[in-house]
Amino acid sequence: MGKGTLLYAQSGGVTAVINATAGAVIEAARARKIKVLAARNGILGALREDLVDTSRESAAAIRALAHTPGGAFGSCRYKLKSLEEDAAKYERLLAVIKAHDVRWFLYNGGNDSADTALKLSTLAESSGYPLTCIGVPKTVDNDLVVTDCCPGFGSAAKYTAVSVAEAALDVAAMADTSTKVFVYEVMGRHAGWLAAAGGLAGQGKDEAPHVILFPEVAYDEAKFLARVEAVVKRVGYCVVVVSEGLRHPDGGFVADAGAGKDAFGHSQLGGVGPLLAATVKDRLGLKVHWTVPDYLQRSARHLASRTDLAHAQAVGRKAVEYALKGMNGVMPVIVRSSHAPYRWTIAPAPLAKIANHEKTMPKGFIDASGYGITAACRRYLTPLVKGEAPPPYGPDGLPKYVRLALKPVAKKLPAFG
Amino acid sequence: MGKGTLLYAQSGGVTAVINATAGAVIEAARARKIKVLAARNGILGALREDLVDTSRESAAAIRALAHTPGGAFGSCRYKLKSLEEDAAKYERLLAVIKAHDVRWFLYNGGNDSADTALKLSTLAESSGYPLTCIGVPKTVDNDLVVTDCCPGFGSAAKYTAVSVAEAALDVAAMADTSTKVFVYEVMGRHAGWLAAAGGLAGQGKDEAPHVILFPEVAYDEAKFLARVEAVVKRVGYCVVVVSEGLRHPDGGFVADAGAGKDAFGHSQLGGVGPLLAATVKDRLGLKVHWTVPDYLQRSARHLASRTDLAHAQAVGRKAVEYALKGMNGVMPVIVRSSHAPYRWTIAPAPLAKIANHEKTMPKGFIDASGYGITAACRRYLTPLVKGEAPPPYGPDGLPKYVRLALKPVAKKLPAFG
Repeated sequence: MGKGTLLYAQSGGVTAVINATAGAVIEAARARKIKVLAARNGILGALREDLVDTSRESAAAIRALAHTPGGAFGSCRYKLKSLEEDAAKYERLLAVIKAHDVRWFLYNGGNDSADTALKLSTLAESSGYPLTCIGVPKTVDNDLVVTDCCPGFGSAAKYTAVSVAEAALDVAAMADTSTKVFVYEVMGRHAGWLAAAGGLAGQGKDEAPHVILFPEVAYDEAKFLARVEAVVKRVGYCVVVVSEGLRHPDGGFVADAGAGKDAFGHSQLGGVGPLLAATVKDRLGLKVHWTVPDYLQRSARHLASRTDLAHAQAVGRKAVEYALKGMNGVMPVIVRSSHAPYRWTIAPAPLAKIANHEKTMPKGFIDASGYGITAACRRYLTPLVKGEAPPPYGPDGLPKYVRLALKPVAKKLPAFG
Repeated sequence: MGKGTLLYAQSGGVTAVINATAGAVIEAARARKIKVLAARNGILGALREDLVDTSRESAAAIRALAHTPGGAFGSCRYKLKSLEEDAAKYERLLAVIKAHDVRWFLYNGGNDSADTALKLSTLAESSGYPLTCIGVPKTVDNDLVVTDCCPGFGSAAKYTAVSVAEAALDVAAMADTSTKVFVYEVMGRHAGWLAAAGGLAGQGKDEAPHVILFPEVAYDEAKFLARVEAVVKRVGYCVVVVSEGLRHPDGGFVADAGAGKDAFGHSQLGGVGPLLAATVKDRLGLKVHWTVPDYLQRSARHLASRTDLAHAQAVGRKAVEYALKGMNGVMPVIVRSSHAPYRWTIAPAPLAKIANHEKTMPKGFIDASGYGITAACRRYLTPLVKGEAPPPYGPDGLPKYVRLALKPVAKKLPAFG
C-alpha cells in the first residue's frame, strides 16, 4: 500500500471561484507532498475511472485557477440515490478509489454532493477501507445550512448588485421618452439570496431596485402592478429584480406560465423576467426592457468579490487539513464573528447536518412591504461583496483564463456499466 | 450680448462612457472659462427650456463622470422631422438658444442627433444667429459612417467578449450532464458589430463562440441546426452568439416570430435568443440555456475598455475645440492610422456625410461560413477592447458612481407646446 492519493471533484452549477477552491486544494496538498487526482465531470469521472493527474499541471497553471471561472475539471448534475438503490455504483466508486490508492476524497459542491460524500464515507467505513470524505462548499444560491455563506455566492451577489446599479443608471437616463420599467431576473430557484443582493444596488429613498420579488414571498400580481405604477409615477421609472423561483400562492412557479408550447407546438423558454415584463406592458401600458443574465452571473470572474475569493481558497486549504487529520464526514464552513469589521474563520461541521437541507432567506431579511431588504440583510450581505479581485488581462483586452492540460491517469479497471 | 454659453445634450441609447464625453466637454470648456449648460433628456430639455447649470457641479463630480455609466443629464429617443414639418419646434429651439445666449451647441448621439445638429445649424445660419453646432459621436452599435469606430462600442464589445468567454467556460464544465448549447443575444438591430465582438472570446479551432449569427447574413434554420449539431458532436457543447437584428431571407426579423400575443392575448416579449434556444431544444433535443444581457452590455462601466474611454474623452475635448473655432456642422471622428501598435487621431468630418447613414459589417469581416469573424475583423476590433479602466469602488463593494446635483437654470421663456 502506497502513501495514498487525494481525489478532488467538482459538482453542480459552477461558480466564479470554484476553481480557486480547486487551486487551494492542490497547492495545500502539494505542500504536503500529497498527490492530487481530479475526477472529470464530478462523481461521474470517478465512476468512469476518468481521472486527471494534477501533478502534471505547472505551478503557474494551478495558481491561475484562482482567477479562472467555470469548472476546470468539469462538473456534473448527477445525484446518486441511496446506498441500497445505487449499491453497484457505490461499490464501483469504492473499487476505483481503492485501485488508485485514494485515501482522501474531497467533493466540492452543494447539498447533493455533501450527501454523496456522506454516503461514500459510510460505505468505506463499513467496508473497513480507510477513506476520509470531506464536502467542500460551493453554490451561488447560498442555500447551504450551517455555514454563514457559500463560496461562489459573494461574487454572484457582487455581479448582481453592480449590474442592477449600472442598468438602473441607464433606465434613469432613458425613462423620459423610452423604457419606464426594467426587469432583472436572477438565479435562485428556492431561495432569494441573489434577489436580495440586487437590493444592495441602492439604499436611499426611491433608489433602484424599487421592487424585489423573492421566492419566499408569494406573488400577488395586483399588488405588484400597483407598486410598479406608483413607483413610475413618483420616480419616473421602476427597476424590478425578480428571482427565477418566484411562486404563486399555490406554490407553482410563476415562470411556468411563460414556458410550454406555442400555437405551433414550439417550445417557449420563458423566464419569469420576460413574463413579468409582458404583464407590465399589457396591464400598465408602459415601455419595458428586461434582462436574464443566466450563466453570466455565476461565471463573471472579472467582477469577483475579494471576500468570496478568500472564502473559496480558505475552504479548499482547510478541506485538505481536515482530510489529512482523518476528520471524516465533515465540511469546512464559514463562521462569522463580526459584521463590521467583518471577521470570519473556518470550522468543521458534520455533513449529516448539511446534506439535503436548504437555507432560505430569514423573515427578518425581507422588509414589511415584502419587496425590499432590511438593514439586517444589508449588514449580512455587504461584507460578502466587499473588495475586488480582478483577473490579469492580456494584450488582447481579455482576462487571461487558464486551460489545464488535464493529463489522464491510466485506467486500472475494466469499464463500468 | 454676453460672452456666450455652450449647450450640451445627450441623445439615444446611453453607453458606459457617454458621461466621460460629457465630463471632457465640461472640463475643456471650464478651462477656457466658457459656461456649460446641459439640456435634460436631450433635445427635449432644449425644447422645454429644461436646462442644467453645470457650473454648479463640483470639479470632483465632473471628474467622476469619467467613470459613471448611464446618461447623467438624461437622454431621449426623439427625432425631429424636417425643418418644414417641425418648423415650430426648430423655431422654439432657436428661441431657447438665443434666450440663454448659447453660441455653441454640442449634441452627443448617433445618426439622428447628427441630423438634428445639422438642421439646427442650417436654421441658425439662415436666421443670421451665430450658432456653431457640433455632433459628438456615441453609440454601442458602432454604426456611424466616416468615423473608424464609435465611442461606447469598445466597452460594450469588451463586455461581450469577456462575458462570452466566461459563460463558455461554464458551459464547458456543465456539458457532460447538463447544458449542451448556450445562446447569447447581443444588441445591434441593423449591424453585427457587437455580435462580431463576441467572436473575440476565442480563436483557436473549436473555441467558443462556435456560431455567430449576424444581421448581415440571412438566417437559414436548417444550416444553423446542422452546424450546432456538428459542433456538439465534435466539441461536446456549442456556444452561439446571435444579434437581435438577425433576419430571414425576406428581410423580416427572426425575433418577431417570438413576439406577439399568446393564446390568452398576453404579450410575448420574445428575444431572438430564447427563440433560437427553443428551436435547438425542439429540433435537436439538446438541453439549452440562453442569456439576454440587454442594458447590462451598454452600462457595464465596471468593464469599460480603456481605449474606448480615451476615445470618448478625446471627442469631447475636440468638440469644444471645434466649436470655439466656429467649425459649424462637423463631428469629431476617430481616424485610425495603424492597427498594431494602435494609433489614432481625431479629425473633423462634415455632419452632412454622417447624418442618416448606417455602417454595417463589411463583407471581409465575416468568414466564408457566414458564422464567424475573419482575421481582418479581429485586427479591427482588438485595439478597441484593449486596456482596462475600472471605476473606484467604495467600502460597500460597489463602484462609486456619481449623481450630479442638476441645478436648474431659471426659465426665461413661456412654456412651449
